[in-house]
Amino acid sequence: MKIINKINSSIDRNDIFYSFEYFPPKTEAGVENLYSRIERMANLNPDFIDITWGAGGSTSDLTIDISTTAQNLVGVETQVHMTCTNMKKEDLRAALQTLKDNGLQNILALRGDPPLQSNDWVEVEGGFKNAVDLVRFTRQEFGDYFGICVAGYPEGHPNGNYKQDLVYLKEKIDAGADYVITQLFYDCDQFLKFVYDARAMGINVPILPGIMPINNYNSWMRMIEFCKTKIPPNVQQQVEQLNVEDDEQVREFGIKLCVDICKKLLSSGIKGLHFYTLNLEKSVTRILEELDIQREIDQRSPLPWRPTANVKRQKEDVRPIFWANRPKSYIARTSAWDEFPNGRWGDSRSPAFGDLSDYHIIGMYSAGQPDDRTIIWGECHENIESVYKIFVKFLLGEVSKLPWFDKPIERETIQIQSDMLHMNEKGFLTINSQPAVNAAKSQDPVHGWGPKGGYVYKKAYIEFFASPENTRKLIQVIKNNNVNVSYHAVNIKGEELKNFDNNVTAVTWGVFPNKEIVQPTVVDSESFLVWKNEAFALWLSQWASIYSEGSQSRRVIQQIHDTFYLVNVIDHDYVEGNIFNIFNQL
Amino acid sequence: MKIINKINSSIDRNDIFYSFEYFPPKTEAGVENLYSRIERMANLNPDFIDITWGAGGSTSDLTIDISTTAQNLVGVETQVHMTCTNMKKEDLRAALQTLKDNGLQNILALRGDPPLQSNDWVEVEGGFKNAVDLVRFTRQEFGDYFGICVAGYPEGHPNGNYKQDLVYLKEKIDAGADYVITQLFYDCDQFLKFVYDARAMGINVPILPGIMPINNYNSWMRMIEFCKTKIPPNVQQQVEQLNVEDDEQVREFGIKLCVDICKKLLSSGIKGLHFYTLNLEKSVTRILEELDIQREIDQRSPLPWRPTANVKRQKEDVRPIFWANRPKSYIARTSAWDEFPNGRWGDSRSPAFGDLSDYHIIGMYSAGQPDDRTIIWGECHENIESVYKIFVKFLLGEVSKLPWFDKPIERETIQIQSDMLHMNEKGFLTINSQPAVNAAKSQDPVHGWGPKGGYVYKKAYIEFFASPENTRKLIQVIKNNNVNVSYHAVNIKGEELKNFDNNVTAVTWGVFPNKEIVQPTVVDSESFLVWKNEAFALWLSQWASIYSEGSQSRRVIQQIHDTFYLVNVIDHDYVEGNIFNIFNQL
Repeated sequence: MKIINKINSSIDRNDIFYSFEYFPPKTEAGVENLYSRIERMANLNPDFIDITWGAGGSTSDLTIDISTTAQNLVGVETQVHMTCTNMKKEDLRAALQTLKDNGLQNILALRGDPPLQSNDWVEVEGGFKNAVDLVRFTRQEFGDYFGICVAGYPEGHPNGNYKQDLVYLKEKIDAGADYVITQLFYDCDQFLKFVYDARAMGINVPILPGIMPINNYNSWMRMIEFCKTKIPPNVQQQVEQLNVEDDEQVREFGIKLCVDICKKLLSSGIKGLHFYTLNLEKSVTRILEELDIQREIDQRSPLPWRPTANVKRQKEDVRPIFWANRPKSYIARTSAWDEFPNGRWGDSRSPAFGDLSDYHIIGMYSAGQPDDRTIIWGECHENIESVYKIFVKFLLGEVSKLPWFDKPIERETIQIQSDMLHMNEKGFLTINSQPAVNAAKSQDPVHGWGPKGGYVYKKAYIEFFASPENTRKLIQVIKNNNVNVSYHAVNIKGEELKNFDNNVTAVTWGVFPNKEIVQPTVVDSESFLVWKNEAFALWLSQWASIYSEGSQSRRVIQQIHDTFYLVNVIDHDYVEGNIFNIFNQL
Repeated sequence: MKIINKINSSIDRNDIFYSFEYFPPKTEAGVENLYSRIERMANLNPDFIDITWGAGGSTSDLTIDISTTAQNLVGVETQVHMTCTNMKKEDLRAALQTLKDNGLQNILALRGDPPLQSNDWVEVEGGFKNAVDLVRFTRQEFGDYFGICVAGYPEGHPNGNYKQDLVYLKEKIDAGADYVITQLFYDCDQFLKFVYDARAMGINVPILPGIMPINNYNSWMRMIEFCKTKIPPNVQQQVEQLNVEDDEQVREFGIKLCVDICKKLLSSGIKGLHFYTLNLEKSVTRILEELDIQREIDQRSPLPWRPTANVKRQKEDVRPIFWANRPKSYIARTSAWDEFPNGRWGDSRSPAFGDLSDYHIIGMYSAGQPDDRTIIWGECHENIESVYKIFVKFLLGEVSKLPWFDKPIERETIQIQSDMLHMNEKGFLTINSQPAVNAAKSQDPVHGWGPKGGYVYKKAYIEFFASPENTRKLIQVIKNNNVNVSYHAVNIKGEELKNFDNNVTAVTWGVFPNKEIVQPTVVDSESFLVWKNEAFALWLSQWASIYSEGSQSRRVIQQIHDTFYLVNVIDHDYVEGNIFNIFNQL
């Protein structure tokens, strides 16, 4: 959604809100790390994040890639910096169209700094001179679709003057910009004067202060010089007492400085804070902790999984459980679906799941380079039992990754860990599970999600690979026990064993005040057959491939791939049942 | 759905099934009684019922009316007798089209007996001579839409001969008939021979035996003579020992006779029984009891309310709670809706609720003639408190009807009766309620519905009329107690008081194996405003109208209508809450 709408509703609720800015890293590994960081920091619940646009448009493709991933796969509303430096109209139109196609809806319109190597600013032919031109162009070409933010300069633009800059700001707002983020500053009074002067000019949109922590003394100094940022005398005094070689001390000073600034801003009635994170995690996390402005859980988790922020998927409210540990793969494979949801899950079966092969984002979340994987998953496997041990070690935390997980195991899995260990030791290689939850309160710290005053539920679910013999034994136990349990087994050849007709089963649901029942996770037997191809393929692409052709290890993995069943088991009795009873009888 | 499909799936499940035949009564009161009877007997779970077509088409309009009501409002699959006696093609086409328009899908195609006053059979011009013509015509004009049953004569047609009748039967099947119901008989061996001979002829469709209990000796004798039914010698002996003046003894004999016949048929592998009920209830009920072939609860109640059998509403799976006690009114008012459901309830808001005024069926379920109502609801009301007492008496069973109920109170209401009594004594005039149900098993004898192995739930709901003062007090108590309770109050002027935004709340739902959550009852705040008009109007049309113009009683009722609020209250805490806590504080 448009960030201005989020800001306005935060203001309506009298809530404090904040946002994080990141820049495109220079290396591929850096990009991968940034994704992990954005994902972890998304748990701090920023209203939005934004991604800068390299000087002279040098990182434009990467900016769009990162923004698209953050918006869609991480699920945090993402604003994209757009500069008109060196950009032709048709290029800008194309870039904006790409953002729209990718489900992004927010831009920060900038003139852009000139590339560092050029000393003189030259307008390219058919391009723009100022940010206001970009605002006008975006409104003219895309109407109200985009939320537009513009930059404000509490101390005046480095190359401009304070008064004239306010006139320019007014022009940008009049041209259709929705709100303002300011350049970094350390002089609170100057920021408050700027807001006062802007209001006096008739600028009535929200103005978010730009807050920048300090990572390292020298880089901070370079930034301050580049931006011509004033350092107030009392801050200057403190800086002079620092041991500038001691990064730790400098960072601690920066945290304290930012906390002081934020407190002063908040006490002056400012509600929103924009953090220039410098792609770093600790400082901003610490600042927020010290400000003690964590959000309520009911704002955090409207659903038990993190929705994407893609504007086209705002209505998505149900997902099959199979991709619970690979949500990015699910989002990628369903990105062509038009509507979320088409009514209930049952009605949206028809859209085909897309192919994964050419979705380059996914690779970034894999288990790393072949050499790393060999270390993690074992140099050599003489037999299948040796592979079982890797799964056991994964549950014990001694193996950090498995091909079927693109994120750490859910906290709630811990409560069923000892039963799961026994299963894996016996060769039921678990890749997905959830415990039964019977009427946990929606504010429960482990199981809760959704609005206050509700109750949430889960049916116990376990999904695993098992040998044909183990699969047959399990089915026999289920039959003998006459339990309220469904199973669905399928091997790579597509041979199926199951005890129900094709259907869609809700396995996670919530009952809330003034709502219909929300049922965000389902087991859909048709989707399972799609997932099964992906799940089996990972044995080969991620695991077998790390061993040399013709090796025993490779044969062992290939044998699992060729003969094992992928099985899911649901215990429908979430009130009195225990799904592990059947496994304990094996 | 087509009866042949129900029969086939009963046969597949190896289930015994049965059906009831009724005829159109001669008086309006008789029709009203028949509806009550069909509704009560629907609880015996016949696979279908059928309604005869008077000789010579004399009751055709009434046959269609009764069939439509049974199919739509009572919700039992209804087969309509069609005869071609005295009917022109265009009339038959019109009659079939009317059935289709009314959501009926099954006919019994008969030649028809000649009207009693005419002694000679005359084919009308453009009409048909035999049932087979009607079968052909129906298939030709309506394709596969209709399920078609035809009559079989185990002893030969009264005016035909056994062998020739089998040839005719084969013709009817070949022309497209789906199954056979036979003429009444008391000679089991003859019926079994008939089935054997039919199979030998290549007639492979189901053949249901027609079973007729005895109500009264003389009418039975007339029927037997008219149909030329053979009485086997051993039965004849028993009849001769009867005191034919003793109706009770004759009926008991008839029950025993039918039970013996049914047992013999069932032990011979016959699975379906068709009862000629003669519009009477006790004999058939007793026979079924003695045969001990009651259905399983999961076949009885797929939903907590009885769905209609209208083919156009087969997908209906959600209703607003407001009409829970006036389901016929709800069905009538929504009969123009195209689809049930349009996805979720939320999506089907747009269709307008139709007007009730011209739906003549509804009147039949009202509280009777004005004089009766005066007796029930009091000759004279000096004040509002005196009206409160009528509601209290209704709960106590001392008053049999209220305008807002077209059927008896639900069993489950009994468990909250004492709290309800206190409410009504205080002037909260309850017209609808359900207690909270937290994870009752789906086979629970009181609260259960839906397939085996599930759990069902309800949020406590109470709906009542209350004076403005009582309404204000209640709202204050809800506010003071900070409970998880919603209220929505509206008066005849449309003035609303509520503590939530417009929404749809599930108040009855079920969780079953291999299914999404089923949520068949909702509180929809927009529909409540439609229902409120109907609920207020009943004060005047049903109650005020029984007192003379200008009387004090009429003024009292009018005052309630003009000033009271209609209020609904939902307690969202179905696990730990008690909705009566707030009323007990008043």
